[in-house]
This record gives sequence, C-alpha cells and structure tokens, in this order.
Amino acid sequence: MDAALLDPLLEFLRFPSVSTDPAFAGEVQACAQWLKERFSRMGLEAAIHPTGGHPVVLARNAHLPGRRTVLIYGHYDVQPADPVALWTTPPFEPRVEGGVLFARGSSDNKGQIMAHILGVEQTLREKGELPVNLIFLVEGEEEIGSPHLEAFLQEHREALRPDVIVISDTGMAGPGLPALTYALRGLMGMEIRLHAGGSDLHSGTYGGMVPNPATLLARLVASLHDAEFRVTVPGFYDSVRPLADWEREAWATLPVSEEGLKAEAQVHALFGEAGYTPLERAWARPTLEINGIGGGYQGEGTKTVIPREAFAKITCRLVPDQTPTEIEAKVRAYLERICPPEVRLEIISGHGGDTFVCDPQSADALAAQRAVKAVWGREAALVRAGGSIPILTTFRRILGADILLLGLANPDCAAHAPDENFVLENYEAGVRLNRALLEELAG
Amino acid sequence: MDAALLDPLLEFLRFPSVSTDPAFAGEVQACAQWLKERFSRMGLEAAIHPTGGHPVVLARNAHLPGRRTVLIYGHYDVQPADPVALWTTPPFEPRVEGGVLFARGSSDNKGQIMAHILGVEQTLREKGELPVNLIFLVEGEEEIGSPHLEAFLQEHREALRPDVIVISDTGMAGPGLPALTYALRGLMGMEIRLHAGGSDLHSGTYGGMVPNPATLLARLVASLHDAEFRVTVPGFYDSVRPLADWEREAWATLPVSEEGLKAEAQVHALFGEAGYTPLERAWARPTLEINGIGGGYQGEGTKTVIPREAFAKITCRLVPDQTPTEIEAKVRAYLERICPPEVRLEIISGHGGDTFVCDPQSADALAAQRAVKAVWGREAALVRAGGSIPILTTFRRILGADILLLGLANPDCAAHAPDENFVLENYEAGVRLNRALLEELAG
Repeated sequence: MDAALLDPLLEFLRFPSVSTDPAFAGEVQACAQWLKERFSRMGLEAAIHPTGGHPVVLARNAHLPGRRTVLIYGHYDVQPADPVALWTTPPFEPRVEGGVLFARGSSDNKGQIMAHILGVEQTLREKGELPVNLIFLVEGEEEIGSPHLEAFLQEHREALRPDVIVISDTGMAGPGLPALTYALRGLMGMEIRLHAGGSDLHSGTYGGMVPNPATLLARLVASLHDAEFRVTVPGFYDSVRPLADWEREAWATLPVSEEGLKAEAQVHALFGEAGYTPLERAWARPTLEINGIGGGYQGEGTKTVIPREAFAKITCRLVPDQTPTEIEAKVRAYLERICPPEVRLEIISGHGGDTFVCDPQSADALAAQRAVKAVWGREAALVRAGGSIPILTTFRRILGADILLLGLANPDCAAHAPDENFVLENYEAGVRLNRALLEELAG
Repeated sequence: MDAALLDPLLEFLRFPSVSTDPAFAGEVQACAQWLKERFSRMGLEAAIHPTGGHPVVLARNAHLPGRRTVLIYGHYDVQPADPVALWTTPPFEPRVEGGVLFARGSSDNKGQIMAHILGVEQTLREKGELPVNLIFLVEGEEEIGSPHLEAFLQEHREALRPDVIVISDTGMAGPGLPALTYALRGLMGMEIRLHAGGSDLHSGTYGGMVPNPATLLARLVASLHDAEFRVTVPGFYDSVRPLADWEREAWATLPVSEEGLKAEAQVHALFGEAGYTPLERAWARPTLEINGIGGGYQGEGTKTVIPREAFAKITCRLVPDQTPTEIEAKVRAYLERICPPEVRLEIISGHGGDTFVCDPQSADALAAQRAVKAVWGREAALVRAGGSIPILTTFRRILGADILLLGLANPDCAAHAPDENFVLENYEAGVRLNRALLEELAG
C-alpha cells in the first residue's frame, strides 16, 4: 500500500486515545492536536473545541453559497485495550500482516474516519477544491456515550447546518460486500422488582406458605413470551413496520449462514421468534430481553432462604415505528395486570432510545449507492443493524439532516476486542468512496 | 422465681459461647468447663470430650441393669449476637422483665437444656437417685451444623446405647400450649445452571437470534409449578403420606391465624398450594423453593447484554415418605426433559436430609404426652414443623433409638435474632416436665 495512505493512519493509531480512562487524558488531547494539525496541513480551517470532557475537532473548507453541505462524523477516541495480554502484538503499535492492519481503533473508528480524511486530501491536492461545503466533526467521547455532543451541537447549530451527514462507523455486509445501513433498532429499558416482605425467610419454617418472589418473578418473566417466542405484551407489535418483501429477499442473499452466526456469537444454537430468519429477528423484529436476573442467595452451595425480593432487568429492542414511550406503557400495563397480588411490583424506568431509519430510496441514499457501485463495482447491500446508535437521533433532531451510514469494517473486525483489525483493501476503498460520494452528493 | 432455678441459668447465659467465631473459642471452652463442673456437683459422672472442634460434655448417673436408658441432648453453643445494636440490652447480660428472660441462647438452647439439668438436680436432691439410667449429651457445635457429632456418636456408640432420646430444642405450639413435634421435613438441594455460550453478548447485535439463558431459566423455573402452585414434576407427590383427618382437625384448633403468620413472617400475603391451610402447607406438604436466582448484569441501571449463563438454587422440603434420592432423580429427569435444546443444562447436587417422623402413639410418645398433661394440665398439641434437624437422622441411625421432641420455646422467642428470649413460666414448667417425663419413661 502507498505510504502516503498508510503512514498517516499508523501515526493516528499510535495515540492511545482511550477516552474512558483519566490516565490517558493527555494522549487523548495530543491525538486531537495531531488531528487538527493534519486538517490544517490539508488546507482546511481546523479548530479544537473544548467541551466538558474531551475536545471536538472541527475542520471545514471555505463554504460557498449554492453548494450542498456535507458533515462527516467520526471519533478519534478508542476503547481500552484490555485485556492487553490477549493481543498478538501491542494494541498501540500497529502491525500489518497479510493485508490486514491490527491495532486498537483500526476499525473503530480511526481507520474509517482517516479514509475520509485522505479522500478529501487527495481531492484537494488534485483539484484544489471540493465539490461540496464540507465539515469534519471528529469527537473524542464516542466510546463513553458522547456525553457532551448534544450540548456541542446545540451550541454550534447555526455554524453547522448540513444538508446530509455521513458516518462510517458501522460495518460491511461481508468481506468485499459494501453496505448502506438504513435502519437501527431503538431501546426501552426497565427494571422490575418483586417485593414479598421485610427479610429473607427460613425456607423450612415458611416454605410453602409465603410467596417466593424468585419463583413468582420467573413466572412473570416466562409470561412475557409465548411458546413460539413471540412477545405476549398486548399491542407490542402494533406499531411494527412489517418487513417488506424486498428486504426478506435481499437479506436472504447475504453471505450470512447460521453456522457462521453461531461461531461468531459462540453459542450452541440460534433461537428466536418463530417465522423469521436470524437476521430478520435481529434487524427487523423487536425483542424483549432479560439482561440480568437476581434475588436471594448468590454464593456457593445452598442457603435455605426464601428471598424477600427478586429483580429482572429488561430491555426491549425496538424497530420502526415503535417508540420507547409506547412500549414502556404497554409492558408496564401488562406486568401490572399479570403480577400476583401476593407480591408488590416495582417498575423502575431505564434508558430509552429511538429507532433510526433512513429511506434507502431518498436522493442522498441513491447518491451513496451510486458512489458505492463506482468504487466496488457492485451494488451496496441494503442492511439494517440490531444495535442502537443514540447520537443519530441527536444529530437528526438538532441538525435536521438525514444520515448515511456507510461502514467500512468487516464483520470480524474485533471492534472493542483484542486484535481489532481493519482490512487495508477496505481502507483504500474507503478513500475512493469518499471521493465518489462527495461528487454524487454535490448533485 | 426461685433463685436456685434462675441463678444457674443466668451464669450459663453469661458465657458468649458463639461456636462459629474463632474469637470466642476460649469462651466456648470455659462454658463447657462450667457445665461439666455443674454436672459433677449434682453427683453425675461428667467429662469433657474433645472433638475436632468444640468439645462435647457428657454426664451420667450410675447405670443399673434393668432400668431404661434415657439420653437428653442439648447444646451449649449459641448463634452470634449480631446485629448487637438491635438488642435492647447486651445479649450476654441476661435481663428479666415481665416474666421474660432476654439473652442470646435463652431459648436456643441454654434455657431448655438447663430446665432438664435442674429437673434432674431436684430429683437427685430429693430422692437420691433417678428412675432411669440417664445420659446428658450437650454439644458445642449445633449452631455450625454439628460437624463432629456423627464421629463422636460412632466412637461412643457402645457406651451410649439409649432406649429413647429426649430433645428440647423446638417450640411450644403457642403461649402455654405444650407440644410434641412428631414430624419434620427433609431436604433436597440442587443448583441448575443454563449455559448458552462463551461470553455475554451485545443485546443489540444478537438480541432475538440467540438463546437468552435468563429468559429460558425463568421459563424452566415457571414450569415447576402449575397455576394452583402444585409442583409439576411427575411423581413428585407419589410418596407423600396423606394428611390424616386427625391432623387436619387438630391443627385447625391451634391458636394460629393467617394474620398472625403474616405479621410473624413480615409478608404482604400468604401464598401456596391450593387445597391446604398455611400450616398444612408448611408442615405436611413438600415444596420446591427457589432460594436464589441469578444471571447477567447485577449492578445499577441498564447493561445491554444477553447473559451467557443463568442459575437457580433450588431446595425441596420433603415430607414422609419422600426421600432426597427419589426426589432428586425425579426433578432431574423432568428438568432434563423440558430444558430447551438450545441451552446446556447443568445440575449440581446439593445437600440432602431425610424426613423425621415419630409415631405419636408409640409407648414413649404416649408417656411423654402423659408427662406433659401432668405438668400443664392440658394435652400436648401434636404438631409437625416445616424445618429440618439433620442430626435426628444421625442419632437414629447410629444409636437406633426413637426421639421425643418436647420444645419449651414460644413461637416468638426470636431464636437467632436480636432480643432472643425465654418465658420463665416455660422454664419452670420445663423443670417439672423433666421430672414427670423421667418417671413416665421409666415405665
């Protein structure tokens, strides 16, 4: 690979810009400074903006009236490298082997954002200008939940005003298979607690005559799905946008096998709602998952107590057009109705997050698909993802622009894990994607 | 109360003979020494027998051929006094108020065993001899599960050889209402663990397509009872000795109310198997209780994981003629049959304990009931108890004698809790019970 492409990324990856650990605060700051200087050398107007936490780096070309404005979002912070012992080589000493670059942050997100940066640099060097008004917004707190991003966007709202937002922080549909991710699931979290009495009780003296919250909690939780693993909460599926035929057909052609998913998840078997494939279940169907369950004795061996209380932590993953408010109300009402009167039900509201959906037939989404085809010589796979990216809702609400998710990472990139990696072929394609995309989005 | 009765008990109670805490080992030893000297002064042949832990104190009169041998068992160790702050007065500074003695060990078991000791002392002082060959066996490790008692009994088996064993370490049926406890429940413990995969999974990426062990555990646990709270394990009730009419009738007359039980257990409501009263459920019906349940995230708030495993700790309380072996096999077979194949079921065997039953119409049980009537002027209530006393099986297996459980503690004696107490009226009645009982058992 051309050193002009590889060297800047290697420099970028050598900063251990771990946002969650205060011990790395200096490295995070140094990384932001390096990035700002890189932008400046390319001819962009760049600045480091302090926040309540790690800074945001903003860079822009000279904006001209009549051109569309494109905001490219990325992050320069990375996950911790722990457990470092499981890495083949040190996480902050990038290594290339067989066309694959191994380093913390290589896929998530330094490699992906650097592909965009170098695409812009090439265009500026060759043509002296860009076809659009461009803004790079690269933050340093994505891995800790972007706690200061909303305030930053509110403050800079008038200066940003993009027509479209581009984010490369998701994945490809498979090796060599580019993807436009057009929908993500939302989230509704709650904790339920069943209280039976004032203290744990002796299971000999009282066993059989008093309510056991652990037993009744199990019954309550078991009542949340039917035999075919559909959620039984009345109205739960009312707002679900049905899967379109084209979605089922398109996903069936993806190079995703049940064996492959099992190996990836390290599970004995797949499992889920009847009538749907695994991808359909994870991408287009809402779920009700128990994230944690507890109550009574947790130590080794036996303790003959009847717990005084038991809890379950629940999150529902939501799909368009469900909302956290709607689903919380329905789950609450159902639990309150089926809970036996012998125990007291407490429901504690948790995090919520909206679903995300972008019309893959919009003008900008079609432009993105043309750019993908020009780079890879094949159509972009139109995929959804099962997870949630809460900042998408924030971007859309404050900046009012649509968002294109064009991920460059392979499914086995080990983001957040040891030996995180980025395939150089994807990196190089990403540089070309940036150039084609800006041309297409210019309209 | 006569100082000759009260003073020895106060002395006994001042020893903080907490068996579980090594810091009190010297006090436990001193208490055993004091007890041995007390026995010797009464004219009994007494000795302290070291064990692998705290010693056993044995005392006996001169045994004569042709007399029946009665072994009275008790323990001189006590539960810890924690939380000491919740005691009205210090736990090892006995206080008498309104005819009630407050101190750690007052009911469990120093007061009860001292009533027998003083009954024997009175008889010896007045008559110079006892009507039976008597053995006191007072151990120092009951509150930690009597770990050395079995070996001790095996070693001294030939020297002990009782015809009948008397234990006053249970309760009265109510204030002023003496009881013969003729049956206790047994125990079968196990832990079940469901394993789905190698690690916790992201509930966004994988939620809906992989098995969730917490959800499936809840379903498994919920399958263990039917809608009327009968245990659904096939054959679970096959060996249950049905409640006799006389038992239902006798227990219905006991001064036990649902309101009283709720207040005692500090629960919002009672709950259990259809068709039985609370006492019947706790005394004569087997149970399957969840003592602990866990899996996934246990901290504050939300963590969006699918747990890799989940567990439930189960104990069944057994009634005659169920056995731990039978019930473990039936529960195992049922769980293995209903567990979904997508998760791996692991079953870990736990403690087991046999049920105890003594025929209330046996010659010795009738003798005990005559003694009770002579002391209190009313019939002994024939009761069972929901708990288990594992050493009863040990006594019976090694010494081959029947066991009479004649408890002197009131139901609200707060054994193991702050402000443990013993009603002095019961204590004084216990002294007289010992005298009447030895006469009756002499035959």
